[in-house]
Amino acid sequence: MTELPETKVDVLIIGAGPAGLMLALWLSRLGVKTRIVDKRTAKVYSGQADGFQVRSLEILDSFGVAERVWKEANRMLEVSFWNPDENGTIQRSAKSVNTIPGLSRFTESVLHQGRIEQFFIDGIRASYPSNETPLQVERMVIPTSLEIDEAAAEDPDAHPVTVTLRHLTEEEATPTQMLSNLSDGIFRSNLAEDDVAGMLDRSKGREARDEVVRAKYVVGCDGAHSWTRKTLGKEFEMKGESTDAIWGVMDIVPITDFPDIRFRTMIQNTAGALMIIPRENRMVRLYIQLKEVSAGGGRVDRSQITPEFIFKSAQRIFSPYKLEYHYCDWWTAYQIGQRTGDHFSKLNRVFLAGDAVHTHSPKAGQGMNISMQDSYNLGWKIGLACKNILPRDVLSTYELERKKIAKDLIAFDGKFSKLFTGAPPKDIQTETGVSDDVFQKAFHTSRMFTTGVGVNYQPTVLVAKEADTDPDTDDLPNILVKSVAKSTQSLATNCKLGQRFPSYKVIRQSDARLWELHHKLPSNGRFRIVVFGGDISRPAQRDTVNALGAWLSSYLPKLPTIALCPASDPHSGEIKFKTDEDPSIVDVVLVHAAPRDEIDLLKDVHEAYHPFDSKLGWDYDKVFVDGETFYEEPERAYEKYGVGKGEGAVVGLRPDGYVGLVTFVGGDGAKQIQKWFDGIFQRS
Amino acid sequence: MTELPETKVDVLIIGAGPAGLMLALWLSRLGVKTRIVDKRTAKVYSGQADGFQVRSLEILDSFGVAERVWKEANRMLEVSFWNPDENGTIQRSAKSVNTIPGLSRFTESVLHQGRIEQFFIDGIRASYPSNETPLQVERMVIPTSLEIDEAAAEDPDAHPVTVTLRHLTEEEATPTQMLSNLSDGIFRSNLAEDDVAGMLDRSKGREARDEVVRAKYVVGCDGAHSWTRKTLGKEFEMKGESTDAIWGVMDIVPITDFPDIRFRTMIQNTAGALMIIPRENRMVRLYIQLKEVSAGGGRVDRSQITPEFIFKSAQRIFSPYKLEYHYCDWWTAYQIGQRTGDHFSKLNRVFLAGDAVHTHSPKAGQGMNISMQDSYNLGWKIGLACKNILPRDVLSTYELERKKIAKDLIAFDGKFSKLFTGAPPKDIQTETGVSDDVFQKAFHTSRMFTTGVGVNYQPTVLVAKEADTDPDTDDLPNILVKSVAKSTQSLATNCKLGQRFPSYKVIRQSDARLWELHHKLPSNGRFRIVVFGGDISRPAQRDTVNALGAWLSSYLPKLPTIALCPASDPHSGEIKFKTDEDPSIVDVVLVHAAPRDEIDLLKDVHEAYHPFDSKLGWDYDKVFVDGETFYEEPERAYEKYGVGKGEGAVVGLRPDGYVGLVTFVGGDGAKQIQKWFDGIFQRS
Repeated sequence: MTELPETKVDVLIIGAGPAGLMLALWLSRLGVKTRIVDKRTAKVYSGQADGFQVRSLEILDSFGVAERVWKEANRMLEVSFWNPDENGTIQRSAKSVNTIPGLSRFTESVLHQGRIEQFFIDGIRASYPSNETPLQVERMVIPTSLEIDEAAAEDPDAHPVTVTLRHLTEEEATPTQMLSNLSDGIFRSNLAEDDVAGMLDRSKGREARDEVVRAKYVVGCDGAHSWTRKTLGKEFEMKGESTDAIWGVMDIVPITDFPDIRFRTMIQNTAGALMIIPRENRMVRLYIQLKEVSAGGGRVDRSQITPEFIFKSAQRIFSPYKLEYHYCDWWTAYQIGQRTGDHFSKLNRVFLAGDAVHTHSPKAGQGMNISMQDSYNLGWKIGLACKNILPRDVLSTYELERKKIAKDLIAFDGKFSKLFTGAPPKDIQTETGVSDDVFQKAFHTSRMFTTGVGVNYQPTVLVAKEADTDPDTDDLPNILVKSVAKSTQSLATNCKLGQRFPSYKVIRQSDARLWELHHKLPSNGRFRIVVFGGDISRPAQRDTVNALGAWLSSYLPKLPTIALCPASDPHSGEIKFKTDEDPSIVDVVLVHAAPRDEIDLLKDVHEAYHPFDSKLGWDYDKVFVDGETFYEEPERAYEKYGVGKGEGAVVGLRPDGYVGLVTFVGGDGAKQIQKWFDGIFQRS
Repeated sequence: MTELPETKVDVLIIGAGPAGLMLALWLSRLGVKTRIVDKRTAKVYSGQADGFQVRSLEILDSFGVAERVWKEANRMLEVSFWNPDENGTIQRSAKSVNTIPGLSRFTESVLHQGRIEQFFIDGIRASYPSNETPLQVERMVIPTSLEIDEAAAEDPDAHPVTVTLRHLTEEEATPTQMLSNLSDGIFRSNLAEDDVAGMLDRSKGREARDEVVRAKYVVGCDGAHSWTRKTLGKEFEMKGESTDAIWGVMDIVPITDFPDIRFRTMIQNTAGALMIIPRENRMVRLYIQLKEVSAGGGRVDRSQITPEFIFKSAQRIFSPYKLEYHYCDWWTAYQIGQRTGDHFSKLNRVFLAGDAVHTHSPKAGQGMNISMQDSYNLGWKIGLACKNILPRDVLSTYELERKKIAKDLIAFDGKFSKLFTGAPPKDIQTETGVSDDVFQKAFHTSRMFTTGVGVNYQPTVLVAKEADTDPDTDDLPNILVKSVAKSTQSLATNCKLGQRFPSYKVIRQSDARLWELHHKLPSNGRFRIVVFGGDISRPAQRDTVNALGAWLSSYLPKLPTIALCPASDPHSGEIKFKTDEDPSIVDVVLVHAAPRDEIDLLKDVHEAYHPFDSKLGWDYDKVFVDGETFYEEPERAYEKYGVGKGEGAVVGLRPDGYVGLVTFVGGDGAKQIQKWFDGIFQRS
């Protein structure tokens, strides 16, 4: 056997769906040497996932890639509930708000998965200078073996994971179902088997091109049938349950007299249940309960499930309203079930993310979101570990933080799916079946979870807070379970430890422009110290804020620096001129509450808040005000962040925007900041 | 002499600056066969114009190309005035609002001209299906002769304009000044001569490639030294005056302790006057009075004007504040003067637009804006004439409407420049020189003009209003001077006849999404009937609105239809599915004021407001509400448009968004609508 060609890479990503692409985006922004391979011949062009929850949009926006989603997607603002009346005719029983108002600048939105895959690819390209070749998805490539050199697993400079990759021909990479029948919507459904085995079969005996990759880290983002998961062994198997219920999905341009067709709508009829998701491009997605088929007998008769069959069920549920269509963009069917794994990583060298480690029903629009959020959690940790900025053991917090979410997800989905599939009441007073009232209540109480904003990470070195009643940190190395810093949550009551820092509008001191504070905290690998300085027109408070600035100026140079890529500040437009040197891993932002015109940025405020560069002069983009402008109603950001204007607060943020520390501007604030960072960077 | 190759085209545009590109964008959206040539080797990369006024941003947004300007540009929100105190030291005398709040969703912004040229090019590409070659700028091409076949001038099917084009080599197309001295910032200034003659000289005796183009229309957008204008003859010469004052301009990244460096700032010091324009990318543009040079003796000594010389003047004016720089992006100098021509067109076959027909000083940020607005006014008229939708004589309204603006512009600029160059007062009480107070007042009273929102077009067939005291329509054919329709302005007091229709937010009936009404009125060639239907929950008012709908359904099919391009609805995202047939040249939008939940779009409202398509079903994007949502404060659009909720109003809009008709929903409204359109389309 001839020797295979061999290359080294920091991170190898298997799978270029939303989870894999999010990870690739993060790593491209951090300048980490990455490859990403996918078995498909091209990105998805229709169908699949479509729901964007508000936290996902915030995350995408932190990379500058949410704008196009937000523009092209359909926004679901209100939700409508329809049930049979006493005569069995469906009628609207309620219409209400779909996303909690004020939770975010975004609302739940829908757009087909192929568009976001394109936006990710464009966002990755923007990470590179125009004269460099950007990271690109290598398509029609599958892994065929994976080994970890366990002896080298803890060596930070080692490349202990060895993967063999096979480059397929186009014919090999095309799923057999696609070859035999182009209209088979089942081939990507969970009713179908994986297609990798078939690809390997077809590639046997051909001129297969193989290569060997040695990686520091490998991440399996390869979906519900994950090859990576299977390769890691039996203890990585997902567990859970399936129900017998089968649902059909169709993306159509409807021709209908149903009045709520452009609202998210739940219909529960005697003929079954149906959900309308109004989509971009005049389309709607219909989730349709298929009462006539069942997985009860073990396997489903797939030949029975055709678009015609699914659509007839939809028509019955819509009755007496008419439903027709001319265009069908995509269709599939699936069996409801919820499964997750016990392990998200092997030796902190091979990781699983997204559907590879949790699957569930699609109706709550969670899959793509939780998947992207998995790799958003993982990306900065792997990236900063590759750059030797973070100790490797911090990678253990990935499983801790995301396994809890996966468990919450399948618990939620199990409950939500059952509610949805319950027999509809004749009227909302009837106790048989799930009452409409119960369903509506469940829907609304689930919103904090489904938006993704409710995520609350556990106490670790990354989040300096007290343990909940059930710490659930058994798997975590002792050194990580608790930060040596101590937070004072009451100083910033709406900057909740372990939760994402919210965004409100603040005014830039230097030019009176209003900014979403999130836009000044982009995902570029930097931790943040947000100093809510309070009313610094009061001399005592100004002295306190400037004393902290002086301390930061002496402390921060002791921490690592980080090189920034061209897209590291995506909301400020083109960055043309270069600064003297790489900035600190910790970025400092001041938000004060003094009258704007009483503050002179250069004279009144310590240089830590407007650093000087010998070529670019002072930085005018680090000091913001909660106050008034000529153009907009006051935002009252301090009130919304839950910070007092007298004392202020310091909020420490992780690179993913989660709150890790809340402490004093004065007092022992500096000491707590130092403890928090030393606990993260300088553990021996 | 061998025969030259010959091609036919609807429109030939000479010059690919902002005026030419705006015209090319319009014509690409209308599907008109166009060529655009430019003598330069590439688009502008730095310097030149930088100011975007709010009306320009609205216009760019109507094509979907404002988003990137709005994102990348620096927004100028407040303006600061500095004058010497009694000791002669400059101090801030006032800081106030820069753009009138509430005037528009945009504010004045600055970004270098090269970026908008790129956005235009991208916007043109979006007009074409992906399998068609888009209109592209042909660079290094200059016209060498132009002739009009006057006998064929009024034949709508003729191509009576013949232009010979020369394709230059790269060396020929490079200005001589650039060849001799890369750092000569004067070469594009009005202190330099035109460079076309030099290009022609250098191309003599070479293998010059010439071709002949026969066009229906030719538009000269070729700048202050316009070859097109010169070729049209002596009566097209621009007239006006120049002052002796010379100003320098520098785009630098400043290093300074001046506190207002990120605000638009006017400094008047004993050493001279200076204006700060804070720019994108940490830059500022400085306009610097050069007291030591003058055009008094006829010609200026250009060798004296260097960046060092200009910058020293700036430092003197900034004193006692320090000013240094490391990066200089661009510099130039110019002599203040104002000139315009008497004729904007020859035989309505060859037109002039932009700097080709008006020049002035750059400080008020008007040049690029008025230029783009010239060709925005012209584009739909030429385009619809090429498609035989509009009678050719409507083209006469271009000169009528834009010559007035040009005259207002140079009058404004003459006054503004003089004020600005006036000696500064020792303090604002002193009567010597221009008092600070006078200057501030002049600045603020000029805002309606400088924003571009104050434009008020004269009565013609396009604008059904009574003549002002001075009708100034001498040049106009009789048939055009007055619409046979009669408006009732009082029905919609803030939809002013002859002015741009403002944009406020309304809620889409079908899905509760809030939209800027402008986003539903894109520049795609269509006229609009905006029906403010009032409270249609009242049966009588609903009947009135639906009677108008029934009438529109029978009348509109008598008018022409128009094919729409892929980018014709740029704010609704990707348009994937095709409608049955081309829509009417008149688009109908309903904005009602009934409680949203009391209206069923399909049942309560006539089909004219939600047209049916056999493949796409009902159109859910034509009915909007002024009311409440769960997410935002009510906009009170009716109040802002000045329309009563009882009676409502009908507002007729031209394809460029200017109000041409205000009439009744009931009464003789339908009759007036018919008269207005018949007066435009069906004159014999």
